Amino acid sequence: MNTGISLLSSLLPDDADAALVISNENRRYFTGFVSSLGYLLVTKKEAYLLVDFRYGEAAQKKARNCQVITFKKLSDELTKLIRDHSLKAVMLEGSAFTLNEASAIETVLTKAGAKAVKTSELDKIISRLRITKTANEVEKIRKAQLITENAFSDTLKLIKEGVSERDLALELEYKMRKAGADGVSFDLITITGKKTSMPHGVPGDETVHNGDFITFDIGALYDGYHSDMTRTVVLGKADEAMKRVYHTVWKAQMNGLAAVKDGVTCGEVDFAARSYIDQAGYQGYFGHSTGHGVGLEIHEAPSVSPDSDVILRSGMVITVEPGIYIPNQYGVRIEDMVVVTKDGCINLATLPKELIEL
Amino acid sequence: MNTGISLLSSLLPDDADAALVISNENRRYFTGFVSSLGYLLVTKKEAYLLVDFRYGEAAQKKARNCQVITFKKLSDELTKLIRDHSLKAVMLEGSAFTLNEASAIETVLTKAGAKAVKTSELDKIISRLRITKTANEVEKIRKAQLITENAFSDTLKLIKEGVSERDLALELEYKMRKAGADGVSFDLITITGKKTSMPHGVPGDETVHNGDFITFDIGALYDGYHSDMTRTVVLGKADEAMKRVYHTVWKAQMNGLAAVKDGVTCGEVDFAARSYIDQAGYQGYFGHSTGHGVGLEIHEAPSVSPDSDVILRSGMVITVEPGIYIPNQYGVRIEDMVVVTKDGCINLATLPKELIEL
Repeated sequence: MNTGISLLSSLLPDDADAALVISNENRRYFTGFVSSLGYLLVTKKEAYLLVDFRYGEAAQKKARNCQVITFKKLSDELTKLIRDHSLKAVMLEGSAFTLNEASAIETVLTKAGAKAVKTSELDKIISRLRITKTANEVEKIRKAQLITENAFSDTLKLIKEGVSERDLALELEYKMRKAGADGVSFDLITITGKKTSMPHGVPGDETVHNGDFITFDIGALYDGYHSDMTRTVVLGKADEAMKRVYHTVWKAQMNGLAAVKDGVTCGEVDFAARSYIDQAGYQGYFGHSTGHGVGLEIHEAPSVSPDSDVILRSGMVITVEPGIYIPNQYGVRIEDMVVVTKDGCINLATLPKELIEL
Repeated sequence: MNTGISLLSSLLPDDADAALVISNENRRYFTGFVSSLGYLLVTKKEAYLLVDFRYGEAAQKKARNCQVITFKKLSDELTKLIRDHSLKAVMLEGSAFTLNEASAIETVLTKAGAKAVKTSELDKIISRLRITKTANEVEKIRKAQLITENAFSDTLKLIKEGVSERDLALELEYKMRKAGADGVSFDLITITGKKTSMPHGVPGDETVHNGDFITFDIGALYDGYHSDMTRTVVLGKADEAMKRVYHTVWKAQMNGLAAVKDGVTCGEVDFAARSYIDQAGYQGYFGHSTGHGVGLEIHEAPSVSPDSDVILRSGMVITVEPGIYIPNQYGVRIEDMVVVTKDGCINLATLPKELIEL
């Protein structure tokens, strides 16, 4: 059972008596109901989902843990709720409200006798709830990962001289969606040759050449949840220098994975991966964090970055994705997504990591 | 030449001496440079694009009409600019800044001696600039439309009993991207049977059946610009009632198109289409506006809605898309996208509108 809303109610600070949640992800998280617009008002005792005529009927059937109100004019319904519950201070989602949206809502609240709390406090409370996943959430992430892996394995068969980066991205997305994905987790990264030295390179018209690395940083979206995986393969044979880079990243990634468990800080996981790369002589060639949380958003808490003292807890889902990027030559990154457990982690990626020479 | 930035400079009100633009569309509009993050500071005399290390090199080459600054720490560079130019009041994009983002920037501005103007005034100024399109912009929209039409024509060949709505959407998107689209303009609407009575139905696992209407509301994204087209076809033969609805919508749409020209209000165009539907006996079955502007966003100014007194001007690009939706039976919508001219309009859609019986 999703008890997120009652938890949120209980976590509202003393000086606020309600929260107004508008981001698609957070409305979905708390109510299970998917819509492109809606307002979830959570007081210390009750919760109301306000939607327009497009969503009224479906929300009545599907939204959990809240009363559904279909509005013609949002301000009328919101005013009534504020007055009926004598609300005096309503926290807004600072990461979701634009200035214009906040201004419009504040006008309504003020007229109804309530103050708008326009800080990032509500974001922090919700992030702390979302950071650990339920078994149900993990299953959706696992399904997204499975779709990704199947699409990846099928797409490897298409790789030959002359295939473009854009085509690889397009084929992957097509296969994921054919297999039931709602879409991709992010703009897929399928880059080749020198471009692999850019951690966030964008697929273009460049084509695959023999002897080149190809980096796939890919993920599917399934029932609202994301997955994230990176594999680096080579067309033809890798030379010794390429193999050394690859195996260094692989070992660093294994060290990072081995460090993950409940009670360890994110900084310790980052250090486990990073120090191996540094000691192997590639200091300065790993310019990003080791990982991040994954869930309803592709990047969410916690950040697995150097010196982070955030403590990993069972049920968190994070990536471990070290890389080595040698400017104007190539780069290698290997990424798995894992669920933190009491004594380690469960790897949601099932594909092997031996260097694939196509 | 894009003179957008100098126009924006000249339109800044007396009580503000700079604008800070952060939305991807507006940064792209003013500088021609595409990035997922960046800050465009426009004073009454100068313009600066601040980007991080990922974009510095590319922005130096490609960003127009501004000086590029690559920042390590945004606050340092912004502080320097505020002080060097003695800026006292900086307008923020109220439709783009979240409360949290505005709060962070306001802290920087305040320390540097400037005030943050957190209204919707800047949005309005920019919307007035973007509402009419240059020939270059129209060509991109036309290209997006052409890609859409080709994908549509090819996809019609796939329609037969048993094909699902989802599959139709997926095939269309695949074909558009294969043809060079960056993606789709919006989640494609490909709905069948009773679902066609919902103007914004979402494609599902429902399959096409003989005698059913199929509504395609589709568009491609090309070089940042959107297209938008709706066609309703039937699998097999339409009965007389279906034909009557179809021809009523078609005639209403032709009336709407005939009303479009420089100097006419949006309300007059809406009335031209709507009154025909009403007089044909379908009053109450056309529950949305007749159209909207299209450009860097799929929905932008002007809104072609009842009673709107916004005056159409040459170079505006709008849709004309009346429909009739009969609950629990079916619906029909026909939509073209046109460029307003002095004496009428240029239709960017080239496909015929005779009812297609597949």
